[in-house]
Order: sequence, then structure tokens, then C-alpha cells
Amino acid sequence: MKGRFDVGVLGATGIVGQEIITALVGHPWFQVTWIGASERSVGKRYAAATPWRLAASRPEDVSEMTVEPCVPGAAPMLLFSGLDSSIAGEVERAFAVAGHTVVSNARNHRMDADVPLVIPEINADHLQLLEEQRCVRQWKGKIVTNPNCSTIVMALALAPLRQFGLTHVMISTLQAVSGAGYPGVSSLDIIGNILPYIDGEEAKIENEAQKILGSLVDRRVVPHEVVVSAQATRVPVINGHTALISVKFESSPTSTDIIQAFRDFSGRPQSESLPSAPRQPVCYLDEPDRPQPKLDVDRESGMVVTVGRLRECSVLDYKFIALGHNTIRGAAGAAVLNAELMKVDGFLGEVEIQETGLGAAD
Amino acid sequence: MKGRFDVGVLGATGIVGQEIITALVGHPWFQVTWIGASERSVGKRYAAATPWRLAASRPEDVSEMTVEPCVPGAAPMLLFSGLDSSIAGEVERAFAVAGHTVVSNARNHRMDADVPLVIPEINADHLQLLEEQRCVRQWKGKIVTNPNCSTIVMALALAPLRQFGLTHVMISTLQAVSGAGYPGVSSLDIIGNILPYIDGEEAKIENEAQKILGSLVDRRVVPHEVVVSAQATRVPVINGHTALISVKFESSPTSTDIIQAFRDFSGRPQSESLPSAPRQPVCYLDEPDRPQPKLDVDRESGMVVTVGRLRECSVLDYKFIALGHNTIRGAAGAAVLNAELMKVDGFLGEVEIQETGLGAAD
Amino acid sequence: MKGRFDVGVLGATGIVGQEIITALVGHPWFQVTWIGASERSVGKRYAAATPWRLAASRPEDVSEMTVEPCVPGAAPMLLFSGLDSSIAGEVERAFAVAGHTVVSNARNHRMDADVPLVIPEINADHLQLLEEQRCVRQWKGKIVTNPNCSTIVMALALAPLRQFGLTHVMISTLQAVSGAGYPGVSSLDIIGNILPYIDGEEAKIENEAQKILGSLVDRRVVPHEVVVSAQATRVPVINGHTALISVKFESSPTSTDIIQAFRDFSGRPQSESLPSAPRQPVCYLDEPDRPQPKLDVDRESGMVVTVGRLRECSVLDYKFIALGHNTIRGAAGAAVLNAELMKVDGFLGEVEIQETGLGAAD
Amino acid sequence: MKGRFDVGVLGATGIVGQEIITALVGHPWFQVTWIGASERSVGKRYAAATPWRLAASRPEDVSEMTVEPCVPGAAPMLLFSGLDSSIAGEVERAFAVAGHTVVSNARNHRMDADVPLVIPEINADHLQLLEEQRCVRQWKGKIVTNPNCSTIVMALALAPLRQFGLTHVMISTLQAVSGAGYPGVSSLDIIGNILPYIDGEEAKIENEAQKILGSLVDRRVVPHEVVVSAQATRVPVINGHTALISVKFESSPTSTDIIQAFRDFSGRPQSESLPSAPRQPVCYLDEPDRPQPKLDVDRESGMVVTVGRLRECSVLDYKFIALGHNTIRGAAGAAVLNAELMKVDGFLGEVEIQETGLGAAD
Repeated sequence: MKGRFDVGVLGATGIVGQEIITALVGHPWFQVTWIGASERSVGKRYAAATPWRLAASRPEDVSEMTVEPCVPGAAPMLLFSGLDSSIAGEVERAFAVAGHTVVSNARNHRMDADVPLVIPEINADHLQLLEEQRCVRQWKGKIVTNPNCSTIVMALALAPLRQFGLTHVMISTLQAVSGAGYPGVSSLDIIGNILPYIDGEEAKIENEAQKILGSLVDRRVVPHEVVVSAQATRVPVINGHTALISVKFESSPTSTDIIQAFRDFSGRPQSESLPSAPRQPVCYLDEPDRPQPKLDVDRESGMVVTVGRLRECSVLDYKFIALGHNTIRGAAGAAVLNAELMKVDGFLGEVEIQETGLGAAD
Repeated sequence: MKGRFDVGVLGATGIVGQEIITALVGHPWFQVTWIGASERSVGKRYAAATPWRLAASRPEDVSEMTVEPCVPGAAPMLLFSGLDSSIAGEVERAFAVAGHTVVSNARNHRMDADVPLVIPEINADHLQLLEEQRCVRQWKGKIVTNPNCSTIVMALALAPLRQFGLTHVMISTLQAVSGAGYPGVSSLDIIGNILPYIDGEEAKIENEAQKILGSLVDRRVVPHEVVVSAQATRVPVINGHTALISVKFESSPTSTDIIQAFRDFSGRPQSESLPSAPRQPVCYLDEPDRPQPKLDVDRESGMVVTVGRLRECSVLDYKFIALGHNTIRGAAGAAVLNAELMKVDGFLGEVEIQETGLGAAD
Repeated sequence: MKGRFDVGVLGATGIVGQEIITALVGHPWFQVTWIGASERSVGKRYAAATPWRLAASRPEDVSEMTVEPCVPGAAPMLLFSGLDSSIAGEVERAFAVAGHTVVSNARNHRMDADVPLVIPEINADHLQLLEEQRCVRQWKGKIVTNPNCSTIVMALALAPLRQFGLTHVMISTLQAVSGAGYPGVSSLDIIGNILPYIDGEEAKIENEAQKILGSLVDRRVVPHEVVVSAQATRVPVINGHTALISVKFESSPTSTDIIQAFRDFSGRPQSESLPSAPRQPVCYLDEPDRPQPKLDVDRESGMVVTVGRLRECSVLDYKFIALGHNTIRGAAGAAVLNAELMKVDGFLGEVEIQETGLGAAD
Repeated sequence: MKGRFDVGVLGATGIVGQEIITALVGHPWFQVTWIGASERSVGKRYAAATPWRLAASRPEDVSEMTVEPCVPGAAPMLLFSGLDSSIAGEVERAFAVAGHTVVSNARNHRMDADVPLVIPEINADHLQLLEEQRCVRQWKGKIVTNPNCSTIVMALALAPLRQFGLTHVMISTLQAVSGAGYPGVSSLDIIGNILPYIDGEEAKIENEAQKILGSLVDRRVVPHEVVVSAQATRVPVINGHTALISVKFESSPTSTDIIQAFRDFSGRPQSESLPSAPRQPVCYLDEPDRPQPKLDVDRESGMVVTVGRLRECSVLDYKFIALGHNTIRGAAGAAVLNAELMKVDGFLGEVEIQETGLGAAD
């Protein structure tokens, strides 16, 4: 490793784009050198085009960049996509056709059979789908996706439990408003209120989990057989999706077994010491009143899923509560961690020639 | 019926007491003429002793009353109890021993085998336990209770479904802060946050439901065999407990059957036209984003449980969302409705001699 | 009075439109028979065109009406306008030209010299500007406006104090999110936060007050000489603008004088017993921790400004706190009260021929 | 500097105590080695005695300490006091009599003529009052205080403007709930609401500012002649007091002069590079919608007062908005910064013999 990769951000002015840019500040491998957004913003300085919504300051170097149109060409080979799903499908494909590597947070290609849907601690091997993608699509580039924010929180809490023969999952989510983007949820709808409906969310949670937890066989994913039933709500919380989960197993683990499984859980990001990897991806707390968004959402820079309150369930086997930062672990940080995994696994090989020679700065 | 019954309120200065007093303003049968509270308040004017927390104005007549100690004696024969559970057990028993009828919202005696735990639309016949209570306890008076606020919301949503052979229930609650009394939940703990733990709540939901839905056989309640598993959380909502419910049946009703069952549900309060009875105790809404606390909690003066989003559940059979006003349908209004039922069923007979002769004012 | 006036609502699908429609439910004089909105909604059933945002149910009769385009023609002679200011200026003028009476909540014409800006308790006589308007504009119809929501709250609190020679006012507002319409303020911007800026609001508060409190001389308004300085913020409250006010007088009233002035304040709506008039437009509370949005905003159906905490100010003379319901007293209710005043003062004369003959229904 | 000072925390289990302990984690000079609290906690492990309320983790070393009674004796010479004002007066005096240096956040001794009320950027020289304190009190130790949280935010925003001849200040505060301690404000009182009253707060703001901004003459403080009028409210914000301020000057600065004064403001903490000093104590932002608690409260670890929206005031001269972190800059961080100043000015000289010899760890 001698330098940084130039990277671009598609949908850079939106809130996911802002979070990706923030997640990449001071990144040892990736440096944002190109930003793309919709017609309305093209040609403007980033600072002028973007109503910055995050508490973290807008990075000064990116602020001075000019917003480019979201078309291949001068863009770097590696692109993070924070595009809205209304356009992400076509735009990302165009970049992949043109030879770019797109690491996407959008939902459009997640369930495509030849597109990896990756959480590096869980299914790093699914990146091998890219070989299938190359054959099928004949693209010069490629697309890798991360799951929906709620799915990521749930999947990280469930992955340590696969060893017990996970068969059924009931999940109720209490989701933060930042998950709806900006402006997203109207304050009139949510102050002192609960919204019992998030369009399309329950289906995403139910379907994506099976793919992520599934096994790679002959260059395709055999979905995990776990049956998931989800109820999704929106709550007046800024950041942090809380999930109330009940699970049923084939085997009969004790609660000690399960807590140990949470605490022992680890994966490629930890073994490879990826820059954005948390030391401990799942943190189990013993206190009876945890996890809480206010107290736990920022654990290890927001990359940890915090779990608590494991107890027996009289309908299924066990129940517990999980919490994760929806815009970091569940979106921007997820995409960055995917790109980091791709790098150490050699999937960014073709872009390595773009090294910026800034290595000394690391 | 020629007049009003004088009634007293135990724990009148607390928030449940305030709600009971508010629920009785202009009541055609019951008139608050006596208020009891703890030592700290005894001897003060009610207005001076009570930091009034409700938007509804403090009734002027009650404001001028003097707070009495919570001991039998000059108190009316019929008493509503909004006492804290730390003292409700003993105080209520003392009143029952002394011949008073105590209609209680406290949890202390709810699960006693000879104490009716009543939701009038569901198990009005359980009042017959009072005969058992009289034999067993040798009290001159009696105690009747209403369930925990979350249990009431759930039980009213489940009662219409008993006909389908209800076997399993998973419930996640998102509970309003008013359920914790005053001062209750600290603002530091709940603004922009979720508390994943409410002490004792899950056990109450799981156990009380079986008694309420159970059958009266030989002057005792045979608990309903339904298995309930609950996860309870506190959310930054003032009034209105939301419940995400999944159910499993012995039979195979269609969703049309179930919605019809919700809409057709009715009980003694409706057939007797009790003063506090809602016309339709369970209201099913077709809109996909309902029920919501902000929009639905006050339906029919807060006495309705609003249900929505019925859909199939891949783990159990069906799932849906229910909402009820925790301090009205779930507490003060529940107690008043119980007393109204007791009146029409003749269980207040012995207090009828206290008629105030104010009938003309009705 | 033998019947009801047919009335229309311009901008009926917006939140102000919804509030006007709600304010007119069961109104003894006015009946909504026509609803107008933008192209997007024209031709649809009102229920289908309108994402209803209010806790009050959508009136069934209006729900079935078909949305009309906002052009004169088949519309009733009397129209309430809840139009957005981006189009209200032109649309309202077109209706006035065509002979309609427009009672508007929009800001566009408020400061026109010949347009009455009316709060009936304060400056009912300003309706005489309509004579000037008729001469100047040569319209067959007319436009009457009510002030900005914050201005109404402040003006009603200041009006009783004019007798003391009001010279200077400092006001800080803590404004509810419903004042920004729907979707209005993003939840991401306001949960657990304060927004220190509301575009154009401070100028409206400072300028409109002088016109409202001014005197009518020779068919024009001589602005009141009071100097107002405003700081406006948005707070996470659904309904109710709170105003922290300091005032300076020419004379030296005692605090007793001032409180008496608040309590004695009354105007034409009270003397005429207008249907939407509060009994007491300004209610002074003695409790040190009032007014509060949660406890006081709905006083007399939201038509009262509640005032409290009068105390001496070391920089000006006195300071106090005022609260009013921004969408009722500050918008929809304000417009309806203006129309009621216009009716009793004979300014709706030309529409009286449209009586619906439904008088018996009253 | 060769080592660390052992320090104790009085009131260590309360929320201010927790914040002081957090502020001292990793401090280069001070190390918490002793914790004192009320009878209820004495003898318990700190972790067991303390319901930890902060998002920052409870420091492990302090967690294992045993809570001591708040009496002099084995306590370190330097003590930070987060005691409640109900007991702080006597307890702090007892420690000062016994020879300890007490750096207090409590209000009890703030306005004592011989007790420094210090904000190091503003009135570092007031520490010289300690000489007077020594003479008057005949204590072996001493007490230094920091102002009320709202006063600190205001005073830091006003201090740069003294050069223009500050004569009058109107201030409206929108104060966070963390300012009321824990449990502090009930969630029932503040979700979706504004509390227009904070007991004693307005007087503190009005009086303390004059002492802080005053001049030291002959070992006593001549209060600044500025007249302050305050209105204080509580808002549903966790951290961050917002202040709407209007000021009147003797001279006639331009807005450019004022903004420059904010930006140029600096003091002893900056020139001495004290460990907790912000680089720029007052940060003026040009964006029209700033400062906001959510976006600005944590600037430079919460030690900055952020100012914005300077504009002319039609009643006084100028108005603007200031924001500061009430529990850091306004409490715990303020106390730590005071102790740091005392150290470099030689006022901790007598405790220096307690160096822990841990210098290598720095």
C-alpha cells in the first residue's frame, strides 16, 4: 500500500452522501476527489449546493469542489453511491458498464442474484458473486451493495446465533428519523408521536436477511432458511434503530451460550484490522435498561450493534434488544467497510493505479 | 335511580387520582365528595395540595375540598383507588374490611384469585368472583380491579379474536410516559430516546391477559390458555400506548373475518349504554399508517382501542397494531367503567342509600 | 338570520385549509360547499386529494366534495383563503376582481394600505378601509386579512395595554412547528433542537403590529407609534406560540393595573357574541409556571391568548409571557372570526342572497 | 510540571459530579482519587452507587472507588464540588476551613463578596479575591466558584462587547433539561412543551453577570454597571442553552466591529494554553440559521460559546443569538478550567506536594 485511492461520491449533496463524505474524512486509504449530484447542483461549489445537516463540520476540501453530473467519464474508478432509489438503479448500472466500481447504499440492486449484499463480518465471501456478475452482465465494472439500515442492525445481532440453528425471527423496529433522509419525516408527524408504517421497510427486513445470512454455493447465494416477520415503526429519535427481537432455534442453547456468542462474534474486518472496523462488532450489555439510543448509539464511532436484555421467550425461544446507528453502521459506515474489505481482498485491484502518491500523509 | 352516589378518591393528589377526578366531572351517577391522600397533603385544600398536571382544568368544587387521610370512617361507601402500589395493598384492604367498595387501578390485588380483574366488554361475568371474595375474606366490603394499562389495550384488541382459538401472542409495546405517573420518567432519559425496560411490565402483560380472557367456572377463573410473550419499551409520547401484536390461532380465519370481528366487537357497556362506554370499543382503520397516538388516542373520549395494519405474519398467523389511551381507557376510565358496570349489575346496592338527591341536576 | 351562507375554501387541501374546514364544522352561519386547490388535486374527491393531518376527523360531507380549480366562477361569494403566499397574491385578487369576498390568512395583501388587517377584538373599525379599497381598486369584491400567527398572539396581549401609552416592545417567540405548515419543518432539524431563524417572521411581527394597533383616520390607518423588536425561534412543540414580551409605557401603571387591563379586555366579538368568540380573549393566570402550550393552548377552543408571569423589567418597564394557539387563534379561527364580524357589520350583504335555507338545521 | 494532582469530587454520584469526573478523564494535571457523596451512597462502589446518565462511559478506575462521606479528612487538598445547593454551602465551607481548596459549581457562595466568581477568559484577575477571603475568613483553605450555566453563556457572549460601553442587556433563554440535574424535569412536563419558569434563574442571570464583568479594585469587585433583564424558559433540548440577547452601548460600533470583537476575543486560558481551553472561546457563524444546539453545542468539546444572527435592534442597539453547552462550558468544564487557571497562577501551590509521580504517563 503506497497511497490513497481517489474516490467519488454519487448523490453527494443528499444526507447519505454527506455521511459518506464525513465517514471518509481522514480515511487512510480513500480520498474524496470527485462529487456527483443531480442537475440542480451541477456546476456549483459543494458548499453552496449542499444544505449540510450533520453536526460534524463539512470538510473544507470537499466544500470547495465543484459538483459534477452523475455520468461516467472523469469520475474516479471507485464510487460510493448515496443516490436516492428513484434513480440509483440506472445511474449505478451506467457507471458499472463504464468500468467503475460502485459501492452502493441504495436498495435497487441489493436482491439481484449476482450482486453481493455484504456485511463484512457476516458474509465477506459473498464478494465472490462478483465473478458471476462479471460473466452475466459483461460489465467492465461492478456493483456491491450493503443492506437496509434496519436489516444491518438485525443481521449483526443474528449472525452470532446461526450456530444454534436459527429458524424463526420476530422483529419489531423503532426506527430513527434520520433513516428517512432529509427532509424526510415531517416534525408535525413525529413530535410526541409514533408512525406505525414505513413504506417497504418490513419486506426489506424480511427478505434481505435471508440473502445476507445465506451460503455461497457455486457462485450463487442459497438463502438462509430463517423465517423473519417484521413490524417497523418510526419514533422521535434522531439516530439509532432499536430492534425488539425474538428467535427460535433448532438447538437448545443456554442464555450463557448466547451471550458468549454475541461477545465472541468477530469477522474479517476484525481479523484484517480494517480502518473502519469496530473492535467488537456486537457488544452485549448486562444492565437491564440497555441498549438505549442516547447512551449506546455512538459506541466505537457508531460501528457497533449493542445488544441487551436477553431473556426467555414463551412463544419462541429467546428475546433480546438490539440497537445500531442507522446512518453509520447502517449506511455510510457500512459502505466504507465494504470498500475496505474489497480492497484487502483484491477487488479494487484495477483502481490501484490511481494512487495519489499521498502516502506520506498517512 | 333517583340520585347520585357520593364517591371518594384514594390517592387523589397523584396523577391517576387527578385523572379519575377528571373522568368523573359531570358524571351522571357518581359525584366526588371526598378525597384522600398521604399524610403530606392531609388537611390542605385539594388545590393547594395538588400540582395539577392535566390539560383539563381542575374542577372547582373538588379544588375546595379538604384532603382527608386514607383511612375508613367518614369516607363514602364507594371509593376509586389511584393509590401507588407501594401502599395500595394495605390501604385498599383496610377499606374493604371496613365495608367500603374499592374500585382500584393498583396492581396489588389484581391477581388474587378472588378479586375480579375486569374489562367490562370482555369479562363482565367475573364480577361474580365477589361472592367468592365475600366468603373467603369475610370482608364487609369488596375490591374490584382493572388491569395494567398495556394489558387493557392488548386485551381489548385480542378479545374479538378469541372466537378463532387464540393460542399464541407476541407483543411489543411502545408506551407513553404518562403511564409512569408523575414525575415518572426523567426528561433526560426520554427526549430523543427509547427506554427498553419498564420494571415488571412484561410480566403483568403476560399474566393478566390470561386471567381477563379466562372463563368463570365454579366461582373461580380458569385462565385462558393463550401464551403471551411481551417486550415493553418507553417512548417519548405523552399519552397512548402502541402495541405491535402477532397472533396464532387454532382455526384459519381470513383477514376479512378478523377485521369484521374487530368491528363487530361489543359488550355489556354497549348493550347497557353505560355512561363512559364508547359506542365501538375497537375501531379498525383501513389507512396503512394508522393508528397513531397523535391522531387516534382521543377517539370517543379516549375509551376506544384503535387497530390497524392487519397483515399476515410469516412466523405466527397475523400481525396488527393497536393503540389505546393509557390513562383513560387504560386507567381512570377503566375504573369508572367498572364502577358503572357494578352499578347496573347490583354490586353497589349497599351504597345506594347514600343517594344525594341531586337527581334533578342531571 | 334565516340561513347559512355557502362558503368556499381556497387552498383547501393544505394544512391551513384543513384547519379552516375544521373550524367551520357545525358553524351556525357558514357552510362549506366548495373547495379549491391546485392543479394536482383538481377533479379528485377531497378525501383522496388530502393527506389529512389533524386529530379532528375529516368532515364527511367535505370529504365527498370534488376539488375545484382556484378560479372565480362557480365558487360561492364568500371565500376563506388558506393559500400559500407563493400564489395567494394573484389568486385572491382575481377573486376580488370577480366580485368575491376573500377572507384571507395569507400575508400577501396584509400591508396594502387599503386592505384591512383585522383582529376583531382590537380594530374592528378597520373594516371601513373596505370603502377605500372599493374606490381605489374598482374591484367588485374585496379582500380582508388577518395577521401572522405570532403577531396575533402578541397583538392580543398588547392591545389591553395601549391605554398606558405603549412605546416599546421587545418580543422573543418560541414558535410551534405547525406554524410552518405541512410538511414544514423536518424532524431532523427540530427533535431535541431549537431553530433560531424563521424566514421573514421577525419583520412581520414588527410591522404588522403597528398597523393593527393603529388608528383609522380619513379612511386610512395611521400606524401605532410603538417600536417593536422581535427575535423568532422554532421549538419542538406541535401547537402554541409562546412569546416572552417586555414593554415600556408613557405612563406608570402598577402591576395590578396591568393585570386588570388583561382581564377586562373585551371587544366586538364579545359584545356581539360572535359564534367563534372566546368569552375572555386574554386570560391572565396567577400561577408562576404558566402559560404552557401543553396546558393552556386549547383554552376556549384555542381562541384565547393566555398571559402570565407579569413582573418588572429592569431595562424596559414590565415583562410577561403570552401564549396562543397559532393555527386556531393565529390562523383559521382568526379568519372565521373576521368573517363573523363582517357579517354582523353588514359587509357580507351582497352574499346574503345565497342563503341555503338550512336554518332549521341550526 | 512533574506530576498529577490528586483531586476529589464532592457530590460525585449526581449528574454534575458525573460530568466533572468525565471532564477529568485523561486530564494531564488532575487525577480523581477520591469521591464523596451523601450518606445513602457512602461505602458503596461508585459503579453501584451511581445511576450513570452520560453517553460517555463511566471511567473504569473511578467505578471501582468506594464512596466516602463528604467530610474533610482523608480527602485530597483539591476538591471539585458538584454538590446540590441544599447542602453545598455548609459542606464546602467545612472543607475550606479544614484547609482544602474547593472549586465549586454550586450557587451558594457565588455572590459572597470575598469569593471569586470566575470565567477565566473574562475575569482571571478576580482570583486575587482569595487574598481577601483568606484575611476575612481565616480559613486555611479556600473556595472559588463558577457562575450559573446560563450566566456563563451570556457572559462569554457579552465580554467581547465591554469595549463598546455595554449599558443594557435583555436576554431570553431557552434552556436544556440537563441544566436541571437528574431526574430534574419530568418528561410529562416538557415533551412537546415549554416551561416558562425556572425557579431563581432570572435573578441569577441578572446579578451574577455584573460581578463577573466587574472590575477588581482594592481587593473587592466593583460590579459592572450593565443592567440585565432576563426571561428564562425550559425547552425540550438535552444539552445547550440558547440565549436571545439584545444590547445597548454607550458607543456606536458597527456590526463589523462587533463581529470582529467576538472573533478576536481571547483570554488567559488561550494565552496559557490551558488543557481545557478552547482555541476560540466565542465563535461567530455567518449562516442565518445558527447557532443550533444540535449542530453547535459540542464545538471544541463543548467549551465554545457559538454566536450568530447579529442584527440591529430597534429598541436597544443590536441583537444576536448565543449558545453554549450548559453542563460542560456552563458547569463541569467551567470548574475544571477554573482549577487549571488557579494552577498556573500559583493558587494550588500548597497542594503541589501531593504530586502522584505519574508524570511519565503525561
